[in-house]
Amino acid sequence: MDSKQQLLQQSIAAKEIFLPHISADPVIFGFEHNELKVLLLKTNYRQKWLLPGGYVRKDEDLDEAVQRILKERSGITDIYLEEFGVFGKKNRSEFHFEDFDETLFQKQRFITVGYYALYSPSKFHLIPDEFSETCEWVFLSKLPQIEFGMDHYEIIQKALFTLRQKISTKPIGRNLLPEKFTLPELQKLYEAVLGKELNRGNFYRKIKNLGILKKLEEQRRGGAHKAPDLYSFDEENYIKAMKNGMNSW
Amino acid sequence: MDSKQQLLQQSIAAKEIFLPHISADPVIFGFEHNELKVLLLKTNYRQKWLLPGGYVRKDEDLDEAVQRILKERSGITDIYLEEFGVFGKKNRSEFHFEDFDETLFQKQRFITVGYYALYSPSKFHLIPDEFSETCEWVFLSKLPQIEFGMDHYEIIQKALFTLRQKISTKPIGRNLLPEKFTLPELQKLYEAVLGKELNRGNFYRKIKNLGILKKLEEQRRGGAHKAPDLYSFDEENYIKAMKNGMNSW
Repeated sequence: MDSKQQLLQQSIAAKEIFLPHISADPVIFGFEHNELKVLLLKTNYRQKWLLPGGYVRKDEDLDEAVQRILKERSGITDIYLEEFGVFGKKNRSEFHFEDFDETLFQKQRFITVGYYALYSPSKFHLIPDEFSETCEWVFLSKLPQIEFGMDHYEIIQKALFTLRQKISTKPIGRNLLPEKFTLPELQKLYEAVLGKELNRGNFYRKIKNLGILKKLEEQRRGGAHKAPDLYSFDEENYIKAMKNGMNSW
Repeated sequence: MDSKQQLLQQSIAAKEIFLPHISADPVIFGFEHNELKVLLLKTNYRQKWLLPGGYVRKDEDLDEAVQRILKERSGITDIYLEEFGVFGKKNRSEFHFEDFDETLFQKQRFITVGYYALYSPSKFHLIPDEFSETCEWVFLSKLPQIEFGMDHYEIIQKALFTLRQKISTKPIGRNLLPEKFTLPELQKLYEAVLGKELNRGNFYRKIKNLGILKKLEEQRRGGAHKAPDLYSFDEENYIKAMKNGMNSW
């Protein structure tokens, strides 16, 4: 079956199962080699790169839908996803399915809800679905060189912008760093998210003030220099800060 | 025409004009007498309180829809609305239209997109639409005593939570305070949003550090005490801070 026939067959089933006009797109950021990556599919049809998104079943909550979609399209399960934006331009997917007529389910106008999450790529075993040639992590620095379908590059940029805003009020790192880490490792993560270098002294002072770190009794061994102190997250304070934000007022 | 006939008539027209399954709900907060208010409609049908929400036209962007909806339902125009959450539980409006059968447009499952804004009530002349007995500002402290339709009380609470988080990274006040204001007036606004008293010294120090205030050469006159200094917002820095956030890293 070629990729057009595959989409026609999906369309018939989709009309029965899914709500029209609503979709969900997960933007999963990973952190590796001190750089951010994002999880993408390369579609069989037209060989475009897309987020691992999909449609909402008539009989499921929107929150359930995005989890199921991510699982079906990439194999990823059990991650916390946060809504960050709704993309509702009337022509946002107009050209993607231009080979088909208006009866194709996938070609109708979709308003899509964007969700994001930050996890370590090494936590997951990726399994692409039948509509995708590959499912893989792509470094953010490579995104301008690949060809996206629809407005998915714009969606990723909005997700990244939101993430950068959020780290003023929410902690990050628990899904990304090993259980024990050094302050320079944590700083590298913040720098990767913010896309800029931070002053070490300022960073250490601010991050310690948040109250989310526990200094351990051990040091990292093996280096040529003085062994650096190890830290872990204070689970209780971290969860509290995730929930309520670290309000500066 | 009674309120049920009115909804039946709306249903017929709505099927032609609007997308199914998608709605938008604006949560407009006002500030008056040092308290926050929210803009609500009281529906003719069932006399419930609702946000001034509505449906998305097939031929308009989602951003345009929420502006049009707010204008049609309350008379309010030209305000900046920010998306803060999507409400997609499958049974969220199940009971609101229980007097009708499943063919009623309004009774189908809707996933609604919440938008919020903060403005001074005195800026607007409210005009309720034909489906509403009244359109008015209700103090937040009164909300637990009124009867809401659907999940609209939950939507308001999420909007308020988002607003509280946002004032760590975004300035507020420009649409709410007179052009010239004193620091105690600005503090009252922050206290109303946060729902708690703030230490005066800390507040003054932090708000001045944001760089969004201009101290004027004049003082507020007429009081019995020492005339307090007047401030206005530094337009350029305020807009920059709104756009980029006041990132603390």
